[in-house]
Amino acid sequence: MASQEIEALTGALARLPGLGPRSARRAVLHLVKKREGALIPLLSALQAVEERLATCSICGNVDTVDPCAICADPRRDARSLCVVEEVADLWALDRSRLFPGRFHVLGGRLSALEGVRPEDLTIDQLVRRIEADGIDEVVLAMNATLEGQTTAHYIAERLERYPVRLTQLAHGLPVGGELDYLDEGTLAQALRARRPVA
Amino acid sequence: MASQEIEALTGALARLPGLGPRSARRAVLHLVKKREGALIPLLSALQAVEERLATCSICGNVDTVDPCAICADPRRDARSLCVVEEVADLWALDRSRLFPGRFHVLGGRLSALEGVRPEDLTIDQLVRRIEADGIDEVVLAMNATLEGQTTAHYIAERLERYPVRLTQLAHGLPVGGELDYLDEGTLAQALRARRPVA
Ligand SMILES: [Zn+2]
Ligand SMILES: [Zn+2]
Repeated sequence: MASQEIEALTGALARLPGLGPRSARRAVLHLVKKREGALIPLLSALQAVEERLATCSICGNVDTVDPCAICADPRRDARSLCVVEEVADLWALDRSRLFPGRFHVLGGRLSALEGVRPEDLTIDQLVRRIEADGIDEVVLAMNATLEGQTTAHYIAERLERYPVRLTQLAHGLPVGGELDYLDEGTLAQALRARRPVA
Repeated sequence: MASQEIEALTGALARLPGLGPRSARRAVLHLVKKREGALIPLLSALQAVEERLATCSICGNVDTVDPCAICADPRRDARSLCVVEEVADLWALDRSRLFPGRFHVLGGRLSALEGVRPEDLTIDQLVRRIEADGIDEVVLAMNATLEGQTTAHYIAERLERYPVRLTQLAHGLPVGGELDYLDEGTLAQALRARRPVA
C-alpha cells in the first residue's frame, strides 16, 4: 500500500520485458532510496531518449539521431548491407559486433495470414538504396521461419538484376528460431557460414 | 553501437537490481518501439515520483506523500506498531498484508563494527511515538541477524517501562536471513507466531 504514484511507477516497470511485479518493486525501492544516484539519472536518461527518439530515415533503425549512429559511422562498410525484419534483429546482430556493414530494417515479414504484402515493408527503399549507394553485398538475415524465408526469397528475386553478392544467414539457425533470441555464438556461426542465395 | 542517449538509458536500467545489461537492452528496445505505450508512461511515472518523493515524518517510510499512505490510512490500527530496520523491510511486510497496524523505520541496526549507535537510529522518535500516540502493541521485526537481534534487545530494554505489549517475530526466520528476501509464507508464519519478548 503505497501512494498512487509509487504504484504507477511499479506498474510501468513491471510491464517491461524481463521484469515482473516482484522485481519491479525492488527496482522502485532502489530508485526511491537512491534519488540522486539512481532515480534522477534514470529519469534524465529516459527524458533524453524520449525527446530525441527518431526512426532512421536511411535504414529504419530507432535511435536518438537521424541518420542513426550506425548509418553515420564512417568506419562502417557502406557497401555491405544486412537486411533484417525488425529493429530488434538489427540490435541483436549489432550487439554481436560481427557485421561490419550497415543495416536495412524491413519493418516485418511477408505474411499471407496477416495480410502483409511487399508494399507494407521497406523493400522499395531497399532497392533504391542498392541502386543509389553502390552496395555490392546484401546479407539477408531473416528469421528461420516460414514467413522469414518467404520474405528472403521474394527479396532475392527482386534483387536478381542488380550486381550485388546476395547471401543469406547459414541455416545453422534452429528451425522456427527467432533471431532476436539466439545467443551470440549461434549468430556468429550463422553469419560466418553465410552462403550465396541459390 | 547506439547513440550516447540510448547507451546511457541502457546503463541506467542495467544498474537496477534484478536487471543486467541484456535485459536492460531488451527493455530499452521495448521502450523505444512503444513510445506512446511504454516510454511515455514510464517517464511520467518516474517524474511524478521524483517530484513528490518524501520521507514520512511519522514513520520514516519513503513515499510521495507525507505522512505516507500507510500512516494516513484511517483503516490501519494506530495502536499497533511494527518496528523494522529499513524501508525495504516495511515494504516487504506491507506487501504480505498481514500486519494491520503502522510501522516505524529505524534506519538501520546497531553495529559495533560499523559504529552505528542508538542515537544514529530513530529509537528516540519511537519512544516519543509510544508516549504520545497511545500505542499498546509493538512488534519488533528486526532481521534474524546478530545485529538485528542486538537491536531488538536494546529496544526491548528501552521500552520496558512503557505499558505496551512487546513482541518479536517468531524465530522461524532462517538464521542469518534477511527479511526483505523472504517469501510471504515464511513471513506470514513468523508474524502469526510472534511471541512476547522474554
Ligand atoms: Zn540508420
Ligand atoms: Zn508513515
